Amino acid sequence: MAIDFSFDPEHVAILDRVKEFMATQVAPVSETAEREGWDRSKWIPAIIEMRQAAKDAGLWLPHMPEEWGGMGLGHVTMAAISAEAAKTPMGPFALNAQAPDEGNMHTLLHWGTDEQKEDYLRPLCEGRVRSCFAMTEPEVAGSDPTLIKTHAYQDGDEWVINGHKWFISGARGAKFAILIARTEEDPDLPQAANSAFLVDTDTPGWEIVRDVETMSGSHNHCEIRITDMRVHGSKMLGGRGQGHLLGQARLGPARLAHCMRWIGQAETALEMMCERALNRYSHGSLLAEKQGIQWKIADSTMELYQAKLMVLHAAYLIDKGADFKSEVSMAKHHVANALWNIIDRAIQVHGALGYSTDTPLAGMLTQARWSRFADGADEIHQMRIAERTLAAYKDTGSVNAATGRLPI
Amino acid sequence: MAIDFSFDPEHVAILDRVKEFMATQVAPVSETAEREGWDRSKWIPAIIEMRQAAKDAGLWLPHMPEEWGGMGLGHVTMAAISAEAAKTPMGPFALNAQAPDEGNMHTLLHWGTDEQKEDYLRPLCEGRVRSCFAMTEPEVAGSDPTLIKTHAYQDGDEWVINGHKWFISGARGAKFAILIARTEEDPDLPQAANSAFLVDTDTPGWEIVRDVETMSGSHNHCEIRITDMRVHGSKMLGGRGQGHLLGQARLGPARLAHCMRWIGQAETALEMMCERALNRYSHGSLLAEKQGIQWKIADSTMELYQAKLMVLHAAYLIDKGADFKSEVSMAKHHVANALWNIIDRAIQVHGALGYSTDTPLAGMLTQARWSRFADGADEIHQMRIAERTLAAYKDTGSVNAATGRLPI
Amino acid sequence: MAIDFSFDPEHVAILDRVKEFMATQVAPVSETAEREGWDRSKWIPAIIEMRQAAKDAGLWLPHMPEEWGGMGLGHVTMAAISAEAAKTPMGPFALNAQAPDEGNMHTLLHWGTDEQKEDYLRPLCEGRVRSCFAMTEPEVAGSDPTLIKTHAYQDGDEWVINGHKWFISGARGAKFAILIARTEEDPDLPQAANSAFLVDTDTPGWEIVRDVETMSGSHNHCEIRITDMRVHGSKMLGGRGQGHLLGQARLGPARLAHCMRWIGQAETALEMMCERALNRYSHGSLLAEKQGIQWKIADSTMELYQAKLMVLHAAYLIDKGADFKSEVSMAKHHVANALWNIIDRAIQVHGALGYSTDTPLAGMLTQARWSRFADGADEIHQMRIAERTLAAYKDTGSVNAATGRLPI
Amino acid sequence: MAIDFSFDPEHVAILDRVKEFMATQVAPVSETAEREGWDRSKWIPAIIEMRQAAKDAGLWLPHMPEEWGGMGLGHVTMAAISAEAAKTPMGPFALNAQAPDEGNMHTLLHWGTDEQKEDYLRPLCEGRVRSCFAMTEPEVAGSDPTLIKTHAYQDGDEWVINGHKWFISGARGAKFAILIARTEEDPDLPQAANSAFLVDTDTPGWEIVRDVETMSGSHNHCEIRITDMRVHGSKMLGGRGQGHLLGQARLGPARLAHCMRWIGQAETALEMMCERALNRYSHGSLLAEKQGIQWKIADSTMELYQAKLMVLHAAYLIDKGADFKSEVSMAKHHVANALWNIIDRAIQVHGALGYSTDTPLAGMLTQARWSRFADGADEIHQMRIAERTLAAYKDTGSVNAATGRLPI
Repeated sequence: MAIDFSFDPEHVAILDRVKEFMATQVAPVSETAEREGWDRSKWIPAIIEMRQAAKDAGLWLPHMPEEWGGMGLGHVTMAAISAEAAKTPMGPFALNAQAPDEGNMHTLLHWGTDEQKEDYLRPLCEGRVRSCFAMTEPEVAGSDPTLIKTHAYQDGDEWVINGHKWFISGARGAKFAILIARTEEDPDLPQAANSAFLVDTDTPGWEIVRDVETMSGSHNHCEIRITDMRVHGSKMLGGRGQGHLLGQARLGPARLAHCMRWIGQAETALEMMCERALNRYSHGSLLAEKQGIQWKIADSTMELYQAKLMVLHAAYLIDKGADFKSEVSMAKHHVANALWNIIDRAIQVHGALGYSTDTPLAGMLTQARWSRFADGADEIHQMRIAERTLAAYKDTGSVNAATGRLPI
Repeated sequence: MAIDFSFDPEHVAILDRVKEFMATQVAPVSETAEREGWDRSKWIPAIIEMRQAAKDAGLWLPHMPEEWGGMGLGHVTMAAISAEAAKTPMGPFALNAQAPDEGNMHTLLHWGTDEQKEDYLRPLCEGRVRSCFAMTEPEVAGSDPTLIKTHAYQDGDEWVINGHKWFISGARGAKFAILIARTEEDPDLPQAANSAFLVDTDTPGWEIVRDVETMSGSHNHCEIRITDMRVHGSKMLGGRGQGHLLGQARLGPARLAHCMRWIGQAETALEMMCERALNRYSHGSLLAEKQGIQWKIADSTMELYQAKLMVLHAAYLIDKGADFKSEVSMAKHHVANALWNIIDRAIQVHGALGYSTDTPLAGMLTQARWSRFADGADEIHQMRIAERTLAAYKDTGSVNAATGRLPI
Repeated sequence: MAIDFSFDPEHVAILDRVKEFMATQVAPVSETAEREGWDRSKWIPAIIEMRQAAKDAGLWLPHMPEEWGGMGLGHVTMAAISAEAAKTPMGPFALNAQAPDEGNMHTLLHWGTDEQKEDYLRPLCEGRVRSCFAMTEPEVAGSDPTLIKTHAYQDGDEWVINGHKWFISGARGAKFAILIARTEEDPDLPQAANSAFLVDTDTPGWEIVRDVETMSGSHNHCEIRITDMRVHGSKMLGGRGQGHLLGQARLGPARLAHCMRWIGQAETALEMMCERALNRYSHGSLLAEKQGIQWKIADSTMELYQAKLMVLHAAYLIDKGADFKSEVSMAKHHVANALWNIIDRAIQVHGALGYSTDTPLAGMLTQARWSRFADGADEIHQMRIAERTLAAYKDTGSVNAATGRLPI
Repeated sequence: MAIDFSFDPEHVAILDRVKEFMATQVAPVSETAEREGWDRSKWIPAIIEMRQAAKDAGLWLPHMPEEWGGMGLGHVTMAAISAEAAKTPMGPFALNAQAPDEGNMHTLLHWGTDEQKEDYLRPLCEGRVRSCFAMTEPEVAGSDPTLIKTHAYQDGDEWVINGHKWFISGARGAKFAILIARTEEDPDLPQAANSAFLVDTDTPGWEIVRDVETMSGSHNHCEIRITDMRVHGSKMLGGRGQGHLLGQARLGPARLAHCMRWIGQAETALEMMCERALNRYSHGSLLAEKQGIQWKIADSTMELYQAKLMVLHAAYLIDKGADFKSEVSMAKHHVANALWNIIDRAIQVHGALGYSTDTPLAGMLTQARWSRFADGADEIHQMRIAERTLAAYKDTGSVNAATGRLPI
C-alpha cells in the first residue's frame, strides 16, 4: 500500500532456509571436490544427491509455478534467493535455477504448446536434462537480431536449417536447444524476420565445433555448426516471425536473473576487500585506516547498495506486470559494471595475492568481464535507455516514466 | 508487508495537489517577478499571499505534526513533495518547508523545552519568522566538530559567548539562530564538548559581518562575529555537551531533505537535455541520434533513477526508526554528484547557450557546486560509509547491514 | 638532432624577463586596482603605461615577426611565455598577446593583402586598436561551419551582409571584426561555402545587441545583429569560399594559445591546493597527510605534466610546419579538462572557502567551464581525433601517425 | 639545444633494423610455434638461433655498454626499441633485453665488484644464463621495504639466510638471484635495514615451492622458501644496508622499461580496435561511424600519445642524469592504466570475440592486470607523486619541479 523495502516473514523464512541449505548441503560438496580434485565420475552422483536434497527441502525450482514442481515465487523473492545461492559455487544449479535453463523454462512456460511443454519443459523441471539457447552468431553483431544469418526454409512438414552460432552456453550436454533462425524474407517489421525452434541436440546437422576458450577458460560456451538440419514444423516455439518477441521477453528477466547472481558475487568481493583492509599493514597503518582505501570500500558499498535497490525495483515491476525494459537495462548495465569494479578494487587491495589464483578473486574478475557485453553490451543498453528517456520526454514532457515511474 | 514502490492513493492525491499548487500559485509569481524585475517591496506581499494560499490549500508545513499546524507526513511522502516543490523557485518556501527552517523545526520539536517550543517553534511554524543554524567556522574544518572554537563560559545565570561563524544560511532576516559553541573543556568523549543555544539575533554581540559572496552570487550565507554575547541559561537547547548529538540528529534528515530538492533540479536538467537533443542539429543528424549524446542521456537517467531509489529508501528507514546513517551518507554523496554531473552534461549539450544565463542551467551549476561539500564533503561521507561497512563486516561477517539491510 | 626537452639559454633568458616583468610591472597594477576599486578612467592610463613598459622591455608582441614590431618567437617559446603571463591578470594583454587579437594577427599576416595588413594588422600590432572574430551563431551548431546562416550577396563592388552572431569575444570596443559569412550557394565542397570579411565596427548595419551574460559574468562576449551591412569587395580576407580554410588555419594555433594560458591557470590552482593541504587540519592530521587528498594532488600533477608535454609537442609540430591537427585537438581536449578538474579539486580541498569569492578559485572554475566547449567542444575534438586515428590505421596499418608521429 | 622530439638518423636506422629483425627473424618463429604446438625441445634450439641472429645483426643487448657486448644506447633510444620489440612475442628476449635480466644487468653494472661482474654479469650478457630478482614477500606489503622479513645473520665469512619470497619472475631456470634480505637490526634510517646478495640458485636452502598460478596462467612467477641458506660474504652486492638504495636505483629504469613494452602492447590493441571498428556493422552503420565508438578510439589515442610523451621525457631525464623519480612514477602509473583501459576498450569493441582467446586481446588483458600493482601499486605511486609535489611547493613555492621541470 506504500513504500516498503521489507519481505514478509514467509519469504524471510524461505531465504533463511536457502542460506542454511547452501551452507550445509552445497558448500561442503564444492570444498571436498576442490580438496580431492574430483573428476566427472565423482561429481555426477554428488550433484544428483545435492539436487534431491533441494527437492526434499522444498527448495526446488523456486522460480517455477507449483504445478510444474516449483515454489511459485515471484521475481522479487527470486532476487534474494539467487543472490544468496550465487555466493556458493553450484548453488543455483542445486536449486535447478541456473542459466540458461531458468530462462528457457520461463520461455517454454509462456510460449510452448501443451505438447512442447510436456516434451521439453517437463524433463527440464524435473532436472533430468539441461538445455541451451542458440541465438548469437560470430559473423554478426549479437545485439542486432535483424542481422541473424542462420536461415530456415520450409520443405514439406519440415524446416531445413543452416547456420553458425557461438557462445552457446551449456551446449555440450544439453538435451535440446531453443534456436533462433531467419524464416521470413521480407517482414513488415525488420525485427520480425526470425522464429524460434526446439531442437533436439542429437538431430543430424547439429554439430558442436568446439567449446570456445575464453579469458576465464572453457566453460561450455560452444560454437555450433548447423548443416541441413531438419526440424518438424511442430517444433516451432511461438509463431512465425516471433523470434524477436520471444527473445526480448526471455531476455528481460534473464538479464535480471544474472544481476541477482552478480550481486552475490559482488558482495563476496566487497567482504574480501574488508577482510584484507582490516588485516594488511603498510606504510605505518592498516589499509583500513588509509583514506584512499576507505574510498574504494565506500564506492564499492554504494555501488552494491544501488545494485540491490535497482534489482529489487526491476523485479517488482516484472512481478506487477508493469513495463520493465528501461529499468532492467539500467540494472543490467549498473550491476555488470559494479561487479567488475568491486572485484577489480578487491584485487587491487590484495595486491599480488589478488592476482594469483590463491583467492577466488582472479577467477571472478575474468568471469565478470563477460557481464559487460553479454545479454546486451553496455553500449546497447545505454542506447536503449536513452531512447526510452527521449520517448518519455517527448510523450509526456517528463522523464518520470523513464526513471522508474516512482512517486518521487 | 512486502517490497512495494508505490504510494497509497491518499499520498498520491496530496502529491497531485502540490503539483497543481506549484503550477497555479507559485510558478506564475516567479515568472511575473522575473519579467517585471520585482524588488523587495513587491516580493513581500506576494510571498505572504502565496503562503496564505498554501495554508488555505492544506499544504502548509507538510513535514510537521498536525498539532503544530502541519500535515504530519513522513519522510517518504516528503521526499516526493520536496522534489516536486523544488522544481519551482520559491516552491519549498511557499510550503514553509525550506532549509534551514525545516531542519530547525525538527530540532526544536525533538530537543526543545515546552517554553522554547512556544517561543521559537511556534512562530516558525506559523511562518511569522525565519531562523538559521550557526555551526560552521572559517578557521576550522566544518566536518570535524571537535575543532569548534566558538566558546561559551558561564557567568551567573548567563552564558557569555565569543566566536566566529560563516556560511550561516539565511542569517540576514532570521529572528533567531541555533548556535553551536564549546562549553565543556575536558569532556569524556571528544565530541561531547559543544552545546546548542537559542539566540535572538538582536542580542548584543551578534554581528553579521557580511553576506559571503560565492561562485553563484550572494544568497544570504553570512559571516557572523560573536563578541561577549550574553545568553540566558534557559536558552540552552538540549543538555550540556549535547551539541554534537543534536547536530547529528538534525543533519541526517536535513541532508536527505536537500537530496529531495536536488532530485527535482536534476530532473529539470535532464528534461532540458532531452529538449535540446531532440531539436539541435549538427554534423548530419539531430544530437538525439548520436551515440555519444545518447550515452550522456542514459548515464544521467541512471543516476537520477538511482537517486530516487536511494532517497526513497533512506526516507523509509527514517520513518521506520531504523538506523539510517550510512544510507543517508550514500544518498547525500550520490545525489550531490548526480546533480552536478547531470547539470554539467546538460550544459555541454547546450554548448554556448548553456554557458550563458539565457537558460537556468548556468545558475543551477554554480549553485550545485556547494552540494558536493556542504553538510559533509564527499570525502567525509566516503570515510563514514567505509567505517560503517568495515564495522558491519567486523561485527557480522557480512556487509548486508551497510548496504541498506535489504532482503537481497 | 635528438630528443631534447630544454630551451636554449637565449629563450630561458626571455622567459626570465617575462617573469620579472609580470612580477614588477603587471601584478602590482592589478593588485592596486582591486584594492582601490578602479574604474575605466583609472584603468586606461595604467594599461597604456603597462604596455609601453612592455615595449621598452622588449617584450612586446612575442608571437609576431620582427618586421611587425614583434619578437619573432616560435610557438614553442610562446607556450612558455603565455603560460607564465597567464598567471597574472592582464599579463597577456600587457604583451599584446591576448585572445582574440593574437589569432587575428596570425590570420591577417597569412591571408591579408598588403593594403589589408597596413589598414588592420598595423594598428593591431601597435596596440592602438582591438579586434574580434565573428563566426559563432546562436541558431546553429558552432562546430559545424557548413550550417552558418549569416549571408552575403554581391551588389556591385560591395557585399551586402545579413546575419546574427553571438559569443563574439571582445566585440565591444573592437575597431574591426573578421566576419565569416556564407557567400557560395552551391560549392563543390560543402565546407567551401563561407568567406571572411574585414568589417569596421562603425559600419552601418553592425549592431551589438548585448554583452551575453554567462556563468562567470559578462566578459564582452557579445551578441551581434547584422542588417544590410555593406562591405567593399576589397575587404574580403582570403579568397571566396576560403572562410573555412582560414578558420581552420586560425583555430589550430589559437586553440593551442588557449592551452598555454590554461596551463598557467591550472598551475596556480594546483599550487593553491598544496598550500591548503599543508595548512588545513581535520580529523587528526593535516590534509596533506591523508591518502585521498594526496591522490587529488597526484592526479592533478599528472594531468598538468601531461598538459605541458602535449602543448610543447604540438607547438613543436607547428613550428616545424608538420601536420598538427590531431595533436592540437588532443592538447585542447586534455588541457581544457585538466584545467577544469584541477580547479574543481582545489575548490574541494578548500571547502566552503573555495566556494566563496574570497579566493580566485570560484571565478576560475566558472571561467574554465567555457574551455570545454569553446573552440570546438570536447565531443567534436573526440570525433576528429578518432577520424584521424582511423585514417592513419587505414592508410598505413599503424596508428603512429595519429599519436604524434613520435619515434616511439 | 632546444625542444626536439625527433631521433637522429643513426637511431632511426637502428629502429628500422629492429622492426625488420622482428618481422623476419622473430615473428615467424612464434607463428610457427603456435601453429605446430611446439614443446620445450623445439623452442630451445629456435631461441638459440634467434638470439644468434640478433648478435649477427648487431642488435644484441641494446641497453648495455659496448664493452659488455652491447649497443650502448641510452634510455630514450631504448624506449623506441623496447616498444617496437614488445609488439612481437619473444621480441625483447631475442635481443636479451627482457625483464628481469635487463634490470639485473644495470644493477650489476653499477653495484657489482669486478669479480661479481665477471661471475654474474658476463654470462648474463652473453645470453648463457638467466637471472631473477627476489624481493617481494607474501606476508608483508611489497611496497614497503621496511617490512621485509627475510633475514640474514653473519656466521664467520658467511651469511645465513632464512625467509620466504614470492612472485619472483623468471625464478625457474634462473642461474642466480639478486636477493634482498634484512641484515641490520637497528639502522639509523628505517629503510637502511636490507642488503642485497648474489645467490646461485643451486645453493642448498633455496627451494622453489611452486610457480604461482595467476589470472593469466603460470608464467614462472615463483614462490621461494629459503632455509638456512649460506652465502659467502663476497656475494653481497653493494654495501650493508644498501638494499633499499639498490632496489630504488634498479626500479626506476626497470619501471620505465616496462612502460616501453606496454606501449607496444597498447598500440597493438588500439590498432585491433580500429580494424574491428572499420569492419563491424551493427544497428545501421559501421562501428567506426558511431560517436560512442569514436570516443573510445579517441580516448585510447590520447592515452597512448600521452604515454609516449611521458616515457620519452622520463627516459630523457635518466639519460641526462637528472632526478627522474616523480616522472617515472607518473609514467608508470599512466602507462599501466592506459594499457589496461585500451585493451579493455578493444575487447568491448570486439564483443564476445574479444572475450574469447581467438584474438590475443583476452590474454593481453589478464597480463595487463598485474601492471597496475607490480613495481609499485598505483596507490603507492600516487602517494609518492603527491609527496614530491608538496615538497616542491614547500621548497620553491612552485610545482614546476614536480611536473617535469619543463620550460613551460
